[in-house]
Amino acid sequence: MRAWGYRQAVTPLVEELDTLALGLTAEDVRRLFKLVDGDGRVLALVGERTVPIARLAAGPLRAAELPLRLCYAGAVLAADAGPTGGRRETYQVGAELVGASGAAADAEVIALAVRCLQQAGLGRFQVDVGHSEFFQGLLEGLEVGAEVKAGIRAALAARDVVGVERLLEATPLRAAERDLLLRFPALRGGPELLDAARRLVSNRRSARALDQLAEVTDLLEAHGLGAAVTIDLGAIRDFDYYTGVIFEGFGEDLGRPLAQGGRYDRLLGRFGRPAPATGFVIRLDLLADAIGRRRPPSVPQLDAAVAWSRGSVREALRLGASLRLFGMRAVVDTEPRSLDAARRWRAAVGARHLVHFGRGANPAWAPPAGRLRRLPPEQVVAKLAEASAR
Amino acid sequence: MRAWGYRQAVTPLVEELDTLALGLTAEDVRRLFKLVDGDGRVLALVGERTVPIARLAAGPLRAAELPLRLCYAGAVLAADAGPTGGRRETYQVGAELVGASGAAADAEVIALAVRCLQQAGLGRFQVDVGHSEFFQGLLEGLEVGAEVKAGIRAALAARDVVGVERLLEATPLRAAERDLLLRFPALRGGPELLDAARRLVSNRRSARALDQLAEVTDLLEAHGLGAAVTIDLGAIRDFDYYTGVIFEGFGEDLGRPLAQGGRYDRLLGRFGRPAPATGFVIRLDLLADAIGRRRPPSVPQLDAAVAWSRGSVREALRLGASLRLFGMRAVVDTEPRSLDAARRWRAAVGARHLVHFGRGANPAWAPPAGRLRRLPPEQVVAKLAEASAR
Repeated sequence: MRAWGYRQAVTPLVEELDTLALGLTAEDVRRLFKLVDGDGRVLALVGERTVPIARLAAGPLRAAELPLRLCYAGAVLAADAGPTGGRRETYQVGAELVGASGAAADAEVIALAVRCLQQAGLGRFQVDVGHSEFFQGLLEGLEVGAEVKAGIRAALAARDVVGVERLLEATPLRAAERDLLLRFPALRGGPELLDAARRLVSNRRSARALDQLAEVTDLLEAHGLGAAVTIDLGAIRDFDYYTGVIFEGFGEDLGRPLAQGGRYDRLLGRFGRPAPATGFVIRLDLLADAIGRRRPPSVPQLDAAVAWSRGSVREALRLGASLRLFGMRAVVDTEPRSLDAARRWRAAVGARHLVHFGRGANPAWAPPAGRLRRLPPEQVVAKLAEASAR
Repeated sequence: MRAWGYRQAVTPLVEELDTLALGLTAEDVRRLFKLVDGDGRVLALVGERTVPIARLAAGPLRAAELPLRLCYAGAVLAADAGPTGGRRETYQVGAELVGASGAAADAEVIALAVRCLQQAGLGRFQVDVGHSEFFQGLLEGLEVGAEVKAGIRAALAARDVVGVERLLEATPLRAAERDLLLRFPALRGGPELLDAARRLVSNRRSARALDQLAEVTDLLEAHGLGAAVTIDLGAIRDFDYYTGVIFEGFGEDLGRPLAQGGRYDRLLGRFGRPAPATGFVIRLDLLADAIGRRRPPSVPQLDAAVAWSRGSVREALRLGASLRLFGMRAVVDTEPRSLDAARRWRAAVGARHLVHFGRGANPAWAPPAGRLRRLPPEQVVAKLAEASAR
């Protein structure tokens, strides 16, 4: 994120509940860990960090010129494990591009999210790009009451095609747009999908969304992401919040997005500094799971275990300090040990080399393979530095 | 810490109140941010992370061989700003050496704490080393009731010499030890202080503390810390918790310790795995203040700002990606801009080089000093890579 010009902001873990609620759904607010401080203020542990960043950009950073590129990394908490039974404390990193509208900004945050997933070691990935206004346009065109619209919205969010069909049966919607709504959950595919949809759509709002998506897809190509991008016109996400291009990034498991983001042009205004904005969050717990599946977490191996028998602790401490000066990881024992006991201890701490200071002037050095040798301490340091440089 | 063989443990921000209370004073417990979850359990935001590490070592890591070297880094919270009016959310890093008794272990954590402060950029530092048992031994020898002992303890903790004097007046204490108690807050100095105190002390508990301190001081010399160490026999800290050598690390401001630690051999037993332990915590907020005083935080400068006029965004995106591949920090603009506007934008984002893609085939490159040139994109990348390598 720094390489792309984003600066890290550290926001608090505890914020006022009213502040956080400005950018969250009722369900998100319900899941916040709430607490009351000594002054009787209702606070909450942050459940996400986009709202705190927006508060920062609109408040303390009010004087900073837009666009602002900010990123964050930190814990987020939930008072219950949620519908999927996940962890209550997880970690999120994310980036927010505040004050920039237009396709170049949308494409930038999508490309940055994908590069972050790649940098973290995710081998196979896919990014689904949609637009919150495409569906809004279709729904707006429906000549039905607000209640039926809400029903369609809920049915689509639940991917309940039969329910949508039943609600649409009685509507005088022009055939092409009704057809689009019926096929909504299946509207995924390559950029050619945009042209196909363009011919079927007759309302301005949806048409504009398709134009913007075409422009963003084109720029993602220039970012080098063409093959990984899927258009998802059926993407349904919090409509009170998102106002434009939205996206989700996946690893091999297409059921749970590792990254989520999109344009939210109304949030900053709620903090008194109206400005367009877009950004994303990466859920580190899910990303760690996804990476772990193909690469077990590496146990940090120590370069050396330095043991000593009674009377030789000073020499052992000095050798340990020298090894660390050469960039090696070295643990020095805290109690005297015989050479045999030291060999078992080396295995327990997981060190490649063992050095043991006994009675003699020179310590014994046991490399990972090969036989024991006695050398002056400075030669042991040289040998280990040589071995660790290889 | 990794170089010394410590492995990072990530413990939760929220723990059960009863768990945390096992290792905290009543005042510390009072200051915890408490909350109740959906199941009615009383939880708290962690105010320090030694107790969670002890819980981890005694519970989930029960099968791991001792000694265990664990370290942590994370936020801690307090429900009020505390007596010194500090921040309610701060960051702490620390290390715990669990399962090792003896002077080598005590010296290791002190030396590691000091090396951490140095690595963080603290130029001048001092470490005060004391022993919780020295005072306990003197107090135990007093032939007075528990109430008077508690009074002396409170008076000494408040550095109230007159109060101590009044309480001691009526006691039949042998002259030498009474004298030590009276001079308690002033008992600071070099290692020679240990010999002087040894001659005045007649109880076994205090004498043993002095012997241990002598041994630890000697090992700190071998760790290369001799000059920075001050003996502080008058150190008074939570007696229910600390059981041996204790220490505090300071920068130039000797009023507020940046690092604090010591031996706590009783804590692990409260979690069902009795084991000696020692460790320390570094308060990153205070450390940052101390470092900031001599070194202002560096604003990360961008290597390049890449601007474009209408129709040239793709070329700008490709150049940005190339610069990042070469390890540079590059921000690409999100909207078209003229060359003149781009110069102002370069200044606003704080980038050394400006590259602007206009109508012509080649972009304009404006280095930090020197005049504007037009070069093919690949030559601009080469020039910037050359400049950033210097």
